[in-house]
Order: sequence, then structure tokens, then C-alpha cells
Amino acid sequence: MAQHPIELLINKADSAINAEDFDTLIDIYAENAVLVVKPGMNVIGKEQIKKAFIAIAAYFEHSLDVTQAGLEILESGDTALVLAKTKVSANNQPPLERKATYVFQHFAQKGWLCVIDNSYGHDLLEHTQ
Amino acid sequence: MAQHPIELLINKADSAINAEDFDTLIDIYAENAVLVVKPGMNVIGKEQIKKAFIAIAAYFEHSLDVTQAGLEILESGDTALVLAKTKVSANNQPPLERKATYVFQHFAQKGWLCVIDNSYGHDLLEHTQ
Repeated sequence: MAQHPIELLINKADSAINAEDFDTLIDIYAENAVLVVKPGMNVIGKEQIKKAFIAIAAYFEHSLDVTQAGLEILESGDTALVLAKTKVSANNQPPLERKATYVFQHFAQKGWLCVIDNSYGHDLLEHTQ
Repeated sequence: MAQHPIELLINKADSAINAEDFDTLIDIYAENAVLVVKPGMNVIGKEQIKKAFIAIAAYFEHSLDVTQAGLEILESGDTALVLAKTKVSANNQPPLERKATYVFQHFAQKGWLCVIDNSYGHDLLEHTQ
């Protein structure tokens, strides 16, 4: 079965994160996208997201490796919800699996772009409530 | 702190589900909204969603009680991702808590409406992969 264009974008983003190719990485985000850097800390917009990923790469000692272990996409018109099992490993921490939640939107010129990137899923609720 | 308009809509939806007031319930959905009835079974559009909720009410022997135990909203422009802990109880099953995931969109005339309703969250991935 052909891969959904959003799945291809997520694969591209993972490769870009792992290669620290931040210009390619931010190409998949919409102008006003929101990234949950960690529970309680969000950044908005492509430039802030790029800075956050540069900091994240340093935090993980340039050894971050992100892959998807499962993906489900629910579409409604120009909006799609992505539920993913994301595997994260790095030299300085034990490997972990996150239940990531992304929202993509389809734009007339640019196709699908990520508008909300929350790789922590429901762990946000543990932080805030 | 004032409640987010989406939180008010979700409370309204819960009350409508519990009261089996399906006309009020489908008012919070967009025309082309997607509802995950159960993992592997989705319905699209207000009329199909109404029919699904009528069937769900019968399945739970008209004793369904839905409440939110926690809610986090991430907004990007006209799109919002909602992560909720949803408590579901009924006479014919033990109470359970679901990690629900909703997407709302803001429309010029109608305000916020639900476009994707997935009360199963990442449980979908257990079903499909």
C-alpha cells in the first residue's frame, strides 16, 4: 500500500532530526506551528522550533535517534490527526517509547504541514494536573 | 481562570451524551467530522455520528456516564489539539479511563467545532499494528 504523504513527511523529519539537518526539518512545519519541547514548555513558529531542535540535539549529546514504531492517521478534510509510537534513543539516556500526537494541515500551495507537534502525548496531563 | 471555549463545548457534549440529547450533541461537530466509534470503525459526517451515538447509548443500556478528569489544549491558529482523560462508566461494564484525543477547528461563522473525535487515543495503534 502506498504510504500516506504525512507518513513520508514524518520519516523525512526523523531522518532530518537524526542527521541534525534543521533546515530540512523545519520545512515540514507551518509558519505558526507549535512544538512541545517538554511538558510545560511550548515554542511557536519555525525559527523558535529550529532553535529548540538545536538545543535538543545538544542536550542529547548529538546522538539522538528517532524512529516510528507505529502510526495511525485520521483525516477530516484539510486536517489530520497522527497517533504515533515514537522510539527515542540517545547515548546519555535509556531508550524510550513515546505516544506522540501530531496535527497536520493541508495547505493549497505547500501540501501537508505539521501545525502541532506533541511528542509527549498524554504525558502533558501528568505535568499540568 | 476562564474556561477555554473548547472546554465548555466538551462539557456540553458530555452532558448531551449522558442525557441522550443527540441533537445538541451533534451541534459541536463540523459537517465532515470523523468519529472513532471503536478501534477500526470510523464514521464521517453529522448524521452518521448521530446514528453512532444512538447505537452507543443502546449498547450501554442507556446508562452511559462520561466525564473529563483532565484536559490539555494546544492551539495553533484555527486548529486545536485536545488531550483528555475521559472517564466512562455504565451499568454493564466496569468504569474505565480513556486517553482521548480530539481535534477542533475554528470556523468564521460557527466558532470552534470538533473535526476529529478519537476517544481511544493511542489504543488505535494496538488494534491496527
